[in-house]
Amino acid sequence: MFDSRFQTFDETADPSLGAPRLKMLRARLAATGLDGLLVPRADAHQNEYVAPCEERLAWLTGFTGSAGFAIVLTDKAALFADGRYAIQAREQVDAKAFAIVALGEVSPSDWLAGNAKKGARVGYDPWLHTAGQIARFEAAAKKAGTSLVAVDENPIDLLWTDRPAPPLGRVALHPKKYAGEAAETKLRRVAKALSADALLVSDPHALAWAFNLRGADVAHTPIALGYALIPRRGKPRLFLDPEKFSAPTALALAKLAVVAPPSALPQVLKTLGAKKQKILFDAATAPERLTRLFTEAGGEAETGTDPIALMKARKNATELAGARAAHLRDGVAMARFLCWFDATAPKGRLTEISAAQALETFRRDGGALRDISFPTISAAGPHAALPHYRVTERSNARIGKGVYLVDSGAQYLDGTTDVTRTLAVGRARKEARRANTLVLKGHIAIASAVFPQGTSGAQIDSFARRPLWEAGLDFDHGTGHGVGSYLSVHEGPQRISKLGAVALEPGMILSNEPGYYREGAFGIRIENLVAVEPRAIPGAERDMLGFETLTLAPIDLRLIEPKLLTEEEKAWLNAYHGKVRAALSPHLEASERAWLKQATGRI
Amino acid sequence: MFDSRFQTFDETADPSLGAPRLKMLRARLAATGLDGLLVPRADAHQNEYVAPCEERLAWLTGFTGSAGFAIVLTDKAALFADGRYAIQAREQVDAKAFAIVALGEVSPSDWLAGNAKKGARVGYDPWLHTAGQIARFEAAAKKAGTSLVAVDENPIDLLWTDRPAPPLGRVALHPKKYAGEAAETKLRRVAKALSADALLVSDPHALAWAFNLRGADVAHTPIALGYALIPRRGKPRLFLDPEKFSAPTALALAKLAVVAPPSALPQVLKTLGAKKQKILFDAATAPERLTRLFTEAGGEAETGTDPIALMKARKNATELAGARAAHLRDGVAMARFLCWFDATAPKGRLTEISAAQALETFRRDGGALRDISFPTISAAGPHAALPHYRVTERSNARIGKGVYLVDSGAQYLDGTTDVTRTLAVGRARKEARRANTLVLKGHIAIASAVFPQGTSGAQIDSFARRPLWEAGLDFDHGTGHGVGSYLSVHEGPQRISKLGAVALEPGMILSNEPGYYREGAFGIRIENLVAVEPRAIPGAERDMLGFETLTLAPIDLRLIEPKLLTEEEKAWLNAYHGKVRAALSPHLEASERAWLKQATGRI
Repeated sequence: MFDSRFQTFDETADPSLGAPRLKMLRARLAATGLDGLLVPRADAHQNEYVAPCEERLAWLTGFTGSAGFAIVLTDKAALFADGRYAIQAREQVDAKAFAIVALGEVSPSDWLAGNAKKGARVGYDPWLHTAGQIARFEAAAKKAGTSLVAVDENPIDLLWTDRPAPPLGRVALHPKKYAGEAAETKLRRVAKALSADALLVSDPHALAWAFNLRGADVAHTPIALGYALIPRRGKPRLFLDPEKFSAPTALALAKLAVVAPPSALPQVLKTLGAKKQKILFDAATAPERLTRLFTEAGGEAETGTDPIALMKARKNATELAGARAAHLRDGVAMARFLCWFDATAPKGRLTEISAAQALETFRRDGGALRDISFPTISAAGPHAALPHYRVTERSNARIGKGVYLVDSGAQYLDGTTDVTRTLAVGRARKEARRANTLVLKGHIAIASAVFPQGTSGAQIDSFARRPLWEAGLDFDHGTGHGVGSYLSVHEGPQRISKLGAVALEPGMILSNEPGYYREGAFGIRIENLVAVEPRAIPGAERDMLGFETLTLAPIDLRLIEPKLLTEEEKAWLNAYHGKVRAALSPHLEASERAWLKQATGRI
Repeated sequence: MFDSRFQTFDETADPSLGAPRLKMLRARLAATGLDGLLVPRADAHQNEYVAPCEERLAWLTGFTGSAGFAIVLTDKAALFADGRYAIQAREQVDAKAFAIVALGEVSPSDWLAGNAKKGARVGYDPWLHTAGQIARFEAAAKKAGTSLVAVDENPIDLLWTDRPAPPLGRVALHPKKYAGEAAETKLRRVAKALSADALLVSDPHALAWAFNLRGADVAHTPIALGYALIPRRGKPRLFLDPEKFSAPTALALAKLAVVAPPSALPQVLKTLGAKKQKILFDAATAPERLTRLFTEAGGEAETGTDPIALMKARKNATELAGARAAHLRDGVAMARFLCWFDATAPKGRLTEISAAQALETFRRDGGALRDISFPTISAAGPHAALPHYRVTERSNARIGKGVYLVDSGAQYLDGTTDVTRTLAVGRARKEARRANTLVLKGHIAIASAVFPQGTSGAQIDSFARRPLWEAGLDFDHGTGHGVGSYLSVHEGPQRISKLGAVALEPGMILSNEPGYYREGAFGIRIENLVAVEPRAIPGAERDMLGFETLTLAPIDLRLIEPKLLTEEEKAWLNAYHGKVRAALSPHLEASERAWLKQATGRI
């Protein structure tokens, strides 16, 4: 009945391969005069989701988490994993071959400084690191009296016999009815924002936005791997494999730019370098290889922030209208799922996987789903206390009485969604209801916040925490991340977090997702997407902003203690639920409509 | 009847002297082969309050504001003043001699880059700038093709014939009954915190704290100008003019340190430099002269944060008890002043100066006042819309019907105070009452905040703004600054501001002073000092902190709209007023006690 086409639940770990592969790699390194290798989980664009051919870290160590790093030396090797992957790393990795190190406690560069032998030559693949990352490693290597050596070919690729081919996902034009602005205009705006002679676009999300194109090279995010050079004056150059597009697409792109395969980029950069040009490289994504070859050719590399990031973050009216349409469609799927869940879960036969499959199926039923925007977090009981839990066949738990958390999203042509609901199965315990209500108060504090133009996400983050703080509780992640427009579900630079230094601006889309996690017991998160909008306030002396909530899905009333809410908070919830009911009801069947009415009843 | 001994209301401006002195200075510069001079308002410790002999900027330009800078070139000269001093600068400075530039719009270094001629040699006094400041000027000078030249003697001092002598304020030991910790223990703690061979203490506030001494070299802050070298191992050296202390003080200090005059410091640094020692210089206060001579002698200068700053900020139990005693004494003076003001102001004969004199007199009547902690801001009507207004004989306004703001503080041996009250004279307009109530809501939001250990001031700053934001209003200063213990009323690193990155820790004292300013009309500010304290919350999962409000003075009930307050806010105000009444009543006369009872009535 239900299935999942955009997500697998396989456990790909096989710790037994780690030791022999490590041995092979060391022999290979020795043969080329190297005493070590840096192995990041990265591609040449520092993407969050990478193509299978880039999963070198998993090939070598068995570790499949999305944030990891390994360092191989002649006598030692270490796998670095984020604290949230500590258990997974222990299960997937042969601890005799690799010391497992918590990323937050020891950084890879510090580990290198402390463990590399004097005189050692440690290799790295200059496509997989930014110049800034390598500068940090070089400082560490210097301390240890060792040197870093850029390799021409990645030693792992030479050993990885069944390495998949690089992706050739089809590139499609993203039409103006979704993008809202022609690529010509965008490219002109970018050129105008430059003080350097040109910008090297190395972030495929920026590439997709600037050229109004979308690709299919990695999971969940419709990007095409490639680069562009946008000069201050003259025609841009687009470096994309021509095998990725049809003839009409090629023709359309040729109007915007000189198109060449990515393999042509190094020579172009060398030529521009020889002409002493100044090029802006994006500090967050440009590979060290490109920065270095340009500089060595005589060019002036300016490392900074790609100006496209901020342009992309400010959605235009078309993109905002698209986001509303996407959220209506997604809200219908969510309501159908929640109605089905309420009827089915109490029977006790649902599992985390079957629930995730059902949700994806309801989304596909909408007829417009392109992909899910990230692997669904479907978490029963104590699993929900892990904010980044990913269910596998092995971890898959039955959804029993208590609290169930589902964090999921969709990619539609007109917008990207991301929504978390925490649901009661049977009667929830009082402590879960209390925690859920405190989280909801924080959620409402963000949703109803008003703030002057120029306010950063850091300045409002604590509004989401105050109700928890008053009870001596907190949560250890930011309150919200930026979200793209049929692009990445994690987009910068906007964010609501103590680290969010960028001013919030009209059109930016962010998540509003406070939570609470009790280890070994349960987890709570309530997440809607919001768009920053201007706010007219009578008597205002400043230009004020606020949030329009985009997500349309009921918030579980059975997990709310009304006596902990103020009258204003109740009014917000009732108004939100009224809006959800009015928007979704026309698109639901009678039984679902009846369910929704009760699920959005006034409190 | 009332008078002021710690503050003058003179207008010292005389714009007519600017042009001739500028001419003299240019001639002097030309004679020594210089084409310009940087003239900061600074001493060799980057103090907020400087001794009269350091007022070179005022001598040259006439400008007496506390934040200013001048650059003199052969054909141009500019005075830079903070926006809040724009009017004052125009009144005090001859605009034909000096272009008046807003500091926020053009920085002195940018101005230098844009205006110095190629090849020009611009002098600076290396005692009056930090190494970081000079590095910024050097980068700017490089752009303009000019060079910066350190002068051995300040050219202004050679022309300033009636320049006052450097201060020789008496140094006194600050006894353990106020300091709470012996200097020996403090010095050991500092030595233990060092990774360098020694710390150069260049901030006289840090010097005062570490050696448990207080001085009288500048107005309002009981510091002694001097330096210290605290080595990781061995006896500290204290560089203080021996004329400043009595024989018993000299004996006591000799137990802690080798004492020498400040003039001996350069030679000591050269000797340590020649021994290749590594010394930590405080980035915020160490003069470039000392950093450079040490480096040139062969030493390794580490520029960073003086670890004393954070130690000093965390008040111990004795200092906190002292702060409470100081605030009780200060609260009695405030209550007597407010009672007198309420009886007197409506008669219409008070002025800003006479009110400030009365307040100082009530404080002196307490018998323990050592100084006021800064010049009292006594501001009627539109003057209160200038957050840093300083009344002079010329600006002195009559206090009429409306709103009056008084921001003042005291220095007692056991603590430093800082309190602002906004008072109604006659019946205040509704818009002032509304604004005052919104400011009070922000004040209460800070006073009642609870937050986990590790939270910075930046994370809670917006709590003070949210009620104003909801009305489209805001204020353009931080919510709170750190306060010393019988030391500076403006102490770092703790602060409540979007720039306050330092975690708040138990024992830190800060101001809580949201405001609202309507240009040309009125100004509101409600300021209490608070101390960070641990908070036990039943069921808490984190170590939580909150604030103990130290200030004891009624908040004007006639300026409050009760219907804008929540029940919790009313409860906070009633509890605060109950505490104020209980604490102060026993120390007041019957008529004052009756007044206080009504001023602290329940709402």
